[in-house]
Amino acid sequence: MIKLVKHGMIATESEVFEGDILIEDEKIRAVGHDLPEKDVDEVIDAAGKYVMPGAVDVHTHMDLQSGAYRAVDDFYDGTVAAACGGTTTIVDHMAFGPVGCSLWHQVKEYHRLADDKAVIDYGFHGVIQHVNDSVLKEMGEIAKKEGITSFKIYMTYDFMLKDDEIYQVLKQAKEDGIVIAVHCENDGVINYLRKKYVEEGCTQPKYHPLSRPARCEAEAIDRMLHISAMAGEAPLYIVHLSSKEGLLEVMKAKANHQKHFAAETCTQYLTLTDDIYQDPQEGLKAIMSPPLRKKEDNEALWQALTDNVIDTVGTDHCPFNFKKEKQAGANDFTKTPAGAPGVEERVRVMFSEGVVKGRITMPQMVKYLCTNPCRMYGLYPEKGTLLPGYDADLVILDPNKERTLTHADMHSAVDYTCYEGFHVKGDIDLVMQRGNVIVKDNKFLGKRGDGKYLKRHKSVLAEYDD
Amino acid sequence: MIKLVKHGMIATESEVFEGDILIEDEKIRAVGHDLPEKDVDEVIDAAGKYVMPGAVDVHTHMDLQSGAYRAVDDFYDGTVAAACGGTTTIVDHMAFGPVGCSLWHQVKEYHRLADDKAVIDYGFHGVIQHVNDSVLKEMGEIAKKEGITSFKIYMTYDFMLKDDEIYQVLKQAKEDGIVIAVHCENDGVINYLRKKYVEEGCTQPKYHPLSRPARCEAEAIDRMLHISAMAGEAPLYIVHLSSKEGLLEVMKAKANHQKHFAAETCTQYLTLTDDIYQDPQEGLKAIMSPPLRKKEDNEALWQALTDNVIDTVGTDHCPFNFKKEKQAGANDFTKTPAGAPGVEERVRVMFSEGVVKGRITMPQMVKYLCTNPCRMYGLYPEKGTLLPGYDADLVILDPNKERTLTHADMHSAVDYTCYEGFHVKGDIDLVMQRGNVIVKDNKFLGKRGDGKYLKRHKSVLAEYDD
Amino acid sequence: MIKLVKHGMIATESEVFEGDILIEDEKIRAVGHDLPEKDVDEVIDAAGKYVMPGAVDVHTHMDLQSGAYRAVDDFYDGTVAAACGGTTTIVDHMAFGPVGCSLWHQVKEYHRLADDKAVIDYGFHGVIQHVNDSVLKEMGEIAKKEGITSFKIYMTYDFMLKDDEIYQVLKQAKEDGIVIAVHCENDGVINYLRKKYVEEGCTQPKYHPLSRPARCEAEAIDRMLHISAMAGEAPLYIVHLSSKEGLLEVMKAKANHQKHFAAETCTQYLTLTDDIYQDPQEGLKAIMSPPLRKKEDNEALWQALTDNVIDTVGTDHCPFNFKKEKQAGANDFTKTPAGAPGVEERVRVMFSEGVVKGRITMPQMVKYLCTNPCRMYGLYPEKGTLLPGYDADLVILDPNKERTLTHADMHSAVDYTCYEGFHVKGDIDLVMQRGNVIVKDNKFLGKRGDGKYLKRHKSVLAEYDD
Amino acid sequence: MIKLVKHGMIATESEVFEGDILIEDEKIRAVGHDLPEKDVDEVIDAAGKYVMPGAVDVHTHMDLQSGAYRAVDDFYDGTVAAACGGTTTIVDHMAFGPVGCSLWHQVKEYHRLADDKAVIDYGFHGVIQHVNDSVLKEMGEIAKKEGITSFKIYMTYDFMLKDDEIYQVLKQAKEDGIVIAVHCENDGVINYLRKKYVEEGCTQPKYHPLSRPARCEAEAIDRMLHISAMAGEAPLYIVHLSSKEGLLEVMKAKANHQKHFAAETCTQYLTLTDDIYQDPQEGLKAIMSPPLRKKEDNEALWQALTDNVIDTVGTDHCPFNFKKEKQAGANDFTKTPAGAPGVEERVRVMFSEGVVKGRITMPQMVKYLCTNPCRMYGLYPEKGTLLPGYDADLVILDPNKERTLTHADMHSAVDYTCYEGFHVKGDIDLVMQRGNVIVKDNKFLGKRGDGKYLKRHKSVLAEYDD
Repeated sequence: MIKLVKHGMIATESEVFEGDILIEDEKIRAVGHDLPEKDVDEVIDAAGKYVMPGAVDVHTHMDLQSGAYRAVDDFYDGTVAAACGGTTTIVDHMAFGPVGCSLWHQVKEYHRLADDKAVIDYGFHGVIQHVNDSVLKEMGEIAKKEGITSFKIYMTYDFMLKDDEIYQVLKQAKEDGIVIAVHCENDGVINYLRKKYVEEGCTQPKYHPLSRPARCEAEAIDRMLHISAMAGEAPLYIVHLSSKEGLLEVMKAKANHQKHFAAETCTQYLTLTDDIYQDPQEGLKAIMSPPLRKKEDNEALWQALTDNVIDTVGTDHCPFNFKKEKQAGANDFTKTPAGAPGVEERVRVMFSEGVVKGRITMPQMVKYLCTNPCRMYGLYPEKGTLLPGYDADLVILDPNKERTLTHADMHSAVDYTCYEGFHVKGDIDLVMQRGNVIVKDNKFLGKRGDGKYLKRHKSVLAEYDD
Repeated sequence: MIKLVKHGMIATESEVFEGDILIEDEKIRAVGHDLPEKDVDEVIDAAGKYVMPGAVDVHTHMDLQSGAYRAVDDFYDGTVAAACGGTTTIVDHMAFGPVGCSLWHQVKEYHRLADDKAVIDYGFHGVIQHVNDSVLKEMGEIAKKEGITSFKIYMTYDFMLKDDEIYQVLKQAKEDGIVIAVHCENDGVINYLRKKYVEEGCTQPKYHPLSRPARCEAEAIDRMLHISAMAGEAPLYIVHLSSKEGLLEVMKAKANHQKHFAAETCTQYLTLTDDIYQDPQEGLKAIMSPPLRKKEDNEALWQALTDNVIDTVGTDHCPFNFKKEKQAGANDFTKTPAGAPGVEERVRVMFSEGVVKGRITMPQMVKYLCTNPCRMYGLYPEKGTLLPGYDADLVILDPNKERTLTHADMHSAVDYTCYEGFHVKGDIDLVMQRGNVIVKDNKFLGKRGDGKYLKRHKSVLAEYDD
Repeated sequence: MIKLVKHGMIATESEVFEGDILIEDEKIRAVGHDLPEKDVDEVIDAAGKYVMPGAVDVHTHMDLQSGAYRAVDDFYDGTVAAACGGTTTIVDHMAFGPVGCSLWHQVKEYHRLADDKAVIDYGFHGVIQHVNDSVLKEMGEIAKKEGITSFKIYMTYDFMLKDDEIYQVLKQAKEDGIVIAVHCENDGVINYLRKKYVEEGCTQPKYHPLSRPARCEAEAIDRMLHISAMAGEAPLYIVHLSSKEGLLEVMKAKANHQKHFAAETCTQYLTLTDDIYQDPQEGLKAIMSPPLRKKEDNEALWQALTDNVIDTVGTDHCPFNFKKEKQAGANDFTKTPAGAPGVEERVRVMFSEGVVKGRITMPQMVKYLCTNPCRMYGLYPEKGTLLPGYDADLVILDPNKERTLTHADMHSAVDYTCYEGFHVKGDIDLVMQRGNVIVKDNKFLGKRGDGKYLKRHKSVLAEYDD
Repeated sequence: MIKLVKHGMIATESEVFEGDILIEDEKIRAVGHDLPEKDVDEVIDAAGKYVMPGAVDVHTHMDLQSGAYRAVDDFYDGTVAAACGGTTTIVDHMAFGPVGCSLWHQVKEYHRLADDKAVIDYGFHGVIQHVNDSVLKEMGEIAKKEGITSFKIYMTYDFMLKDDEIYQVLKQAKEDGIVIAVHCENDGVINYLRKKYVEEGCTQPKYHPLSRPARCEAEAIDRMLHISAMAGEAPLYIVHLSSKEGLLEVMKAKANHQKHFAAETCTQYLTLTDDIYQDPQEGLKAIMSPPLRKKEDNEALWQALTDNVIDTVGTDHCPFNFKKEKQAGANDFTKTPAGAPGVEERVRVMFSEGVVKGRITMPQMVKYLCTNPCRMYGLYPEKGTLLPGYDADLVILDPNKERTLTHADMHSAVDYTCYEGFHVKGDIDLVMQRGNVIVKDNKFLGKRGDGKYLKRHKSVLAEYDD
């Protein structure tokens, strides 16, 4: 089966050029000018439109069990939403498993959850919730056998690791060439503040951001970077950077030539603010950790994207229904399951707020949404750019269309979007996954279970020579 | 009783000027030129010599019970040593008390240890080894009743506080106008490394510095400063800054206009290096925490003194006999009681290495050794400078003498000095405490128990207006 | 003649303490507590009031010939104004002399202008308006014979020096231990912009700040610091720092440990903004170079004083009558003689805006207005602090009085003040010069010609050891 | 004519991927996997070798008249040397024209010099040697008619521009979308030092670097960036950055988010040091401006390439014969014509010292030598990468070969190389220019005059939206 995407403005992380893309079965066969249409089964005209690599979201939580609640998107609904938003690959963060379980426990569980459902390609990040010799040994085994070359750790929550455990994990990761993804927030201060606010009857959503100050993020980032330096600079990936203070720690480390680490921010930390928490009901929708911050944090993070200081933009997609699960926190924000949808909104919002508004260039958008996520998580050289031999995952984006985002048009199982009424310039025409058109005009055309499990390579963070 | 010190080069933190000091009983009555000798009982000629305020050491550990060992200087021996080294006031850091004890427990214990023995004026820093409502309440009570306006906390060791406890202590300290002195080292990494080295049979002193990397100090400093910022910038005093990495965190916070904190280094971190640990026996002498660092750390700390970035220089005097207690670590460095003498060496070494070598000016030396320690710990306006109304504590220092430091000439009960054979330019002629000459030509002339307990005021760190 | 100032809050750059000052003839004899009143001719009660050193203004332009205009304060009127504002010493910047003149020419001229008129002590800064071997030789001669140990150079105006000339002057200054005071603005860009604005008919005062952008100051500061570094770090003093951009260059050099230079700002750059230029008439009053800047520049400069980054605060007092000389620019701002009064306002404004508002402490104010100017310009150890042997120049400042500044109450010959209607907390009770009360309750009581010419020592900037 | 380069490791600025390149006539038609060989006239096997874009040197001086001397490479010899070194495009910097000449004068002269000779594609940078309305007007005309969208100015030498002229040129450049390339060195200090050294008889080459201190470069860079900021951020390109001090100014501006400027270093400033000047004869070979610096400058510049702080690497190729022209300086270094060869050495040295030694990645090398020079100087989207539609300019580089550089193997008309005996890993197999193989195994196969004159587009520095 041979397809030809013609006359597009092909966008990679380094340029935008006019050209055709020849696809044979699942792969890009050639990129050229006026490629011959002979033998081509289908021609897709992309004149006047961007053709970008399928977006890659390396921060989602499908079907996540979080305490008493379960994220409402399973791997089918969630990946349909992703696809319709221009994302053709996810690397999903596992939920915690039972106390003391082997690392293999969740690996198996996640295959069970995803393998027959995912409609786009997917991988898993492992999760480390306690540390002992057997866990340390399993890391390398799982990396080798399952291609799970990244594991997440938390510096807060019940399953947080302590500093000595972090050190050991990083040492092991360094040895095995594994990336450690880390949620950086200071646990002690947050727990104290949450308890205190509840005791004082300060239970509305507006206390959520107050209970997780930006300095908690900054502190934890700095601590993690120091521990990593002591462990010989293990491959490190800081997830969902949300604040100016946190960014300053990232910049400090980069200025001191600390390598082997990357920082991710998410769409919401660039575009939404903590004003939403003032409304006791609307605020529930945006309860996530870290919380939304101030306008000046948004601006600082955009500047960091302009300046190539941050490496990727993810979503932390983790949806709970507003009318159901989120209401658990109606009388006590600490009871709200934390998380919000976002996997479907990312590409449109980033193009409109980023590229159209001149904060980032089109190649930068490709870098942050497609290429760098693949680099950081070993999806190279199959995904992340539009070159011969790469998977034919692509998005055709029409810069001349516009759309007002609204829940009615979306595909997640959740009952709201944080971007209700948000107007975007540019829209997605078509999404192709390994040569198949799976979305057209916002309609999903793919098939349940067609997503392929991705055994990943080593991250560039691990390959870097000192 | 009236005394007149004549024709000295009077050194304060802001200048050196030629003049006389008139002392009436315990106080400076006047500073002048050619003050009349009528009614004067004793005239002391200081021509050609510096007259500086008595040095103040706000970091000593007299009679310290540390695990199974006790520091060998009690409050008599230790303060005689201090006096002979030009130090007329100490603020001593209490040992930990029994598990769960009231803050008052050690206050009483320390009065018992010191009140009949100290030969120079003394105060105590409280110590917080666990946190609960009663402890938090006692802080303010003790500050009010005992003038103990500073409490120490540890980020490592058995009695370390956790981040939430630190936050609460800082909040309380902010409210009560109390300074929190803090030992900053990352506990998790250090404990892991110590255990690991011992398990691997790496038990010589040379593994001591390896088990406490400079990044552990830097991390803890950064964490403490972030937590303090979240607590509303409590008055904070970082003890014994030892490394370039730690200094960078101090500089980062100062550059970001974080106020209400001060940083102390100690003589040994400016002048000694970790080379000493290469010798399995000599290394035991210098086992202290944090450990001695590299030449480049020395240089960075000196530069910080030149640039007025660090605030004080203390000693962390905490002596154990080389031939006895220190030998506990002969086969396992982790068994060595940590600490070393230094209270007697400080003034001479700082003058010779600092002022004579042009790294700091004489006024800077006075600032770091006398005036700032008093400012930081509420000894103002009684001590720390040479002005009317201040206590007549002073040192006459002859810049034209020289001396080779050797244990035989020293007064501590301990059996060694880290500065054996160290040659210094400049020497101490005379030390006066509240009008009494207590040291002359390196001979102690004072009396056991003549030291006065100091109820301290609030620190300037607490008074600072935002 | 013996006087005793009793019970004041004596303020030096390092502390405020309660005490008495005993004055014998022109000098401070002693500083003490309850000094005996026997033999005292006059007792002055200062209870509840600050006693600070007489302020020192090292940046005035008395009787300045500037092109066709002459500053309206001669050395009598100007020093009376200074005295009434709490300033007991000035170091005046000479006007340019005839083209090609010897450095001695203006020295003699200024003695003629000042010697019989000045009512407070005074010195002169030399001025270098061209460079040749004879000028370079005269620098050292004049320093030696006249105690003129500082010379000013300009980087803009007709008599500006070029970079090679600057380099030579700095080399010579380094050798002779002379401070070079420098007006830093980029000449090329300013001249071009001024011409352009006039050509385009943009002649109102509001174009004045536009014709001298802050970057012109920043550029020239950076250039000067680089050239000085190449000349071996000559003693350098940057006058009238006005902008945040310029400050950043100062901070960069200090962060890189460049020593031997100091930076001065002036009252007006801390407290006034370029809004005034919007009014075509009022704007004329504030035409000076560099121009007034923005609120954010004010704030940056205050922060620098809080942080001890800037060294002194001067006035650049250079008054022209609003109704007369200033009107020359009514139709073309470039024709306005540049300069404004300020010598009388400084102490009151700095106390009220700085100390009362908590931006600087009282000791910092003394440092910036009294002590540091003396240090930088070799007036030590006669002036700048309140210690035995120093000149009895002092100001009694009552913090409980208030005053609204108005031209009617002022003593300069000029017909306006930039601070008309400005309300200040704190007021000056009394000013003493070398033991004589020369101002009381805003009335001048001194005598024409009683000011003493000051042969100055070397600056500390020149004495600094590398 | 259709060619196929097969199985190469195709290197672009963003990745290295295995693939084929299909070339039709002068252009790349497609990049693909296993592209069909049908209709292909010639197949070139690149298995195991890098295929990179032809290198672009935007800093050469062919046939340059410099005072009494003329660079010995005319456009034939020089471009043959370039080609043999893997460079397929140059943008040459014009010599100064007669005093007061129109900008068109040198444009015509350079067409005369180059059009029949150049063997690779070439463009010209204009040169501005004086400023008036007519010159300012010609800038835009020449950009439009000739595609000369960059002009060079000098801050030193006889034809240097003064600050006001620089300001005007930058304003004009901003308006016309023209890049200003600038040689940054402080003229005043350099001229003074040169004269002084000669007067003192210090005429050997070792005084050359002393007469042009690194601070002269730093100062001029800072000045230029400030002036550019005042002119609204004109497109600016700093040529031949040579020093750590200069780099610090570049970093300062980038940290302050100054955009619209780029910085170039040259091979020699990364790999050679001023040790060479110690030899009175050898030193002559390396007399260039700015001079070679220290090892620590090399390291700082490499680090900047690692960190993506510098934008391009050029050569400043400007050869004079050692045995002839260079001997003019044998008795006085200031008489030596300044410049050295380098156009042929660059690719090999950068690959060996940069990529092989792990200082930069292969994509970074492509960025600095190929892609960025094209971006900065409007050669996009014809040259600088290997994508459909781009010119088929490419280099096949074999990483497994080695070579010792020696003059005997080189092609420039000059009689020496600064890299005599320098051993490099990696070597060039083949060079293709617009589809023609012009070099194979270090033999030139092309034809005189086959180079095409390049009308250039606007630089990205000019297109950048604020």
